[in-house]
Amino acid sequence: MTLPLPVAVDAMGGDFAPDEIVAGALRAHDEHGIPVVLVGRPEDLTDCGGLEVLPASEVIAMDADPGSSVRKMKDSSLVRAAEAVRDGAASAMVSAGNTGATMASALLRMGRIRGVSRPAIATLLPTPGGKPTVLLDAGANSECSPAWLVQFGQMGAVFSRDRLGIAEPRVALLSIGEEPGKGSPFVKEAHRAMTDADWKDASFVGNVEGRDLLTDEVDVVVTDGFTGNVALKTLEGSMTALMTALLTSLGERPEAAEAAQTLGPELDSLYRMFHPDTYGGAMLLGVRGVCIISHGSSRSLAIENAVRAAAEMVEADVVGHITEAVAAPNAD
Amino acid sequence: MTLPLPVAVDAMGGDFAPDEIVAGALRAHDEHGIPVVLVGRPEDLTDCGGLEVLPASEVIAMDADPGSSVRKMKDSSLVRAAEAVRDGAASAMVSAGNTGATMASALLRMGRIRGVSRPAIATLLPTPGGKPTVLLDAGANSECSPAWLVQFGQMGAVFSRDRLGIAEPRVALLSIGEEPGKGSPFVKEAHRAMTDADWKDASFVGNVEGRDLLTDEVDVVVTDGFTGNVALKTLEGSMTALMTALLTSLGERPEAAEAAQTLGPELDSLYRMFHPDTYGGAMLLGVRGVCIISHGSSRSLAIENAVRAAAEMVEADVVGHITEAVAAPNAD
Repeated sequence: MTLPLPVAVDAMGGDFAPDEIVAGALRAHDEHGIPVVLVGRPEDLTDCGGLEVLPASEVIAMDADPGSSVRKMKDSSLVRAAEAVRDGAASAMVSAGNTGATMASALLRMGRIRGVSRPAIATLLPTPGGKPTVLLDAGANSECSPAWLVQFGQMGAVFSRDRLGIAEPRVALLSIGEEPGKGSPFVKEAHRAMTDADWKDASFVGNVEGRDLLTDEVDVVVTDGFTGNVALKTLEGSMTALMTALLTSLGERPEAAEAAQTLGPELDSLYRMFHPDTYGGAMLLGVRGVCIISHGSSRSLAIENAVRAAAEMVEADVVGHITEAVAAPNAD
Repeated sequence: MTLPLPVAVDAMGGDFAPDEIVAGALRAHDEHGIPVVLVGRPEDLTDCGGLEVLPASEVIAMDADPGSSVRKMKDSSLVRAAEAVRDGAASAMVSAGNTGATMASALLRMGRIRGVSRPAIATLLPTPGGKPTVLLDAGANSECSPAWLVQFGQMGAVFSRDRLGIAEPRVALLSIGEEPGKGSPFVKEAHRAMTDADWKDASFVGNVEGRDLLTDEVDVVVTDGFTGNVALKTLEGSMTALMTALLTSLGERPEAAEAAQTLGPELDSLYRMFHPDTYGGAMLLGVRGVCIISHGSSRSLAIENAVRAAAEMVEADVVGHITEAVAAPNAD
């Protein structure tokens, strides 16, 4: 890749910071040729393989209150990373730290794209045998208006195209039945607004249910940030429960344990297919810059993949495409 | 079992009606000694092993509008089954038919328990290594008030105790963070109402997230019917996706296919642990009678288990216990 500006990686955020973060950033740099700048406390980043360090003396804790931390901790790694993007010193930011504070930093320092009502978190869900489904909002806005959901769909369609190469994404609304009359009053109103919206190179295909999220029936699924976050975490929890139950049961009989050994490659590829590290992170759509939000439990592989995704989104000009997509007359 | 009255089984509802329904009802009768009456068209029920038939000439289609069907089709199997409970001709009803029409029939014919604002659907989620988690509302009310959620918790605690034998159920509120301040304004208000409520032999343990649903951390999880239905169907979808991906990958290499043969018992028990048929169905809590709602795709095993659950809930007097539980001063 030939990015003119480095990707700013928050070296202090995440359960395994800074070691796993630095290791992932380094691999993105060394193996994929992506320019990277680490943001954090220089005294904690003495051993980082020659990567450039942008100094920031403060660290916003994983459980800190997002709004007040970002306001008060102006020299935190998160705020400095977002400023680097705003000031043209970095092309994108990546953090596995406090999700709320990452959003707040990006929103306050980069600002919203003109015309965007609310930024939303877009996450990729694994679809066995197909391309991932984009789910948004995965947690940025716990209460939404129907018009915001239209924009989430427009932004999600851009993301599906730029990130996954889907030329004409099929956008759906998450509900509790396929018929337009199913769902809460809010969802019924959102259905009408999405039916009337301008989708350009995408299309609105109506309601889908929770069981359609991991299928190849749709490319983008839109919902409010509360429901989206519950759905995402329910998925994570069910994957963990099923994999744990599988691995436990495989250890109970000697013949089973032996057979499980043979199945190593299959179980490993299954594990990777459904593990959040595979996609590296979610993206905050609607701010004036590329901001990748990685899972707090990210290991180096997740960070490597997150930096690659950030670089790809800069090169694809996803921010420019979102600006065009939301410039429709219905967006208010 | 020694139920004085038979369980009324809607023989016409479900994707595999009437054959699989009749087969399941027959096994519940023959192998578990539960008295059963089939409700449906006598001409479709000529071969039902001597089970009694309560005639009903109409069938509410799986995709029919619930409200108008129940009002118009007074001689439908669903309406007749609910009337049988109301009139003291049956002890409980079981249906794998149209879920909305099942709820409407039960609500209109049996009526609500005094003091219950809204009935809710309680479903059991598998918890590897522990007792299932009760999730409610799984879809009866797409929009709720905070006070209803308190009652859902009280009813869910009764169900957890009577169905699963959990003496002092831990009740939690589904949100997007554990802190009381996390979630939508509605959920924050519900948190306050649940904190102040009278829990008798249960306790309110605060917020949980989607990833906690299949763990042993809580016994009852309360949410509105929209979020609950999305979570439930997301669980079903993820289980299907993961099992499909697993089985596909096992068939791709001859050694893997052979190892998978060896793992037959383990894969089979895993499949059963996560399959909805295992629990037989959800229960509509808050109506004056036992009403078990089975999955539309129910096979005979699901119906057999649903009839057993219905009989157990009658013997445990779950309706009486709910009446006591919601008689708290905060229930409005």
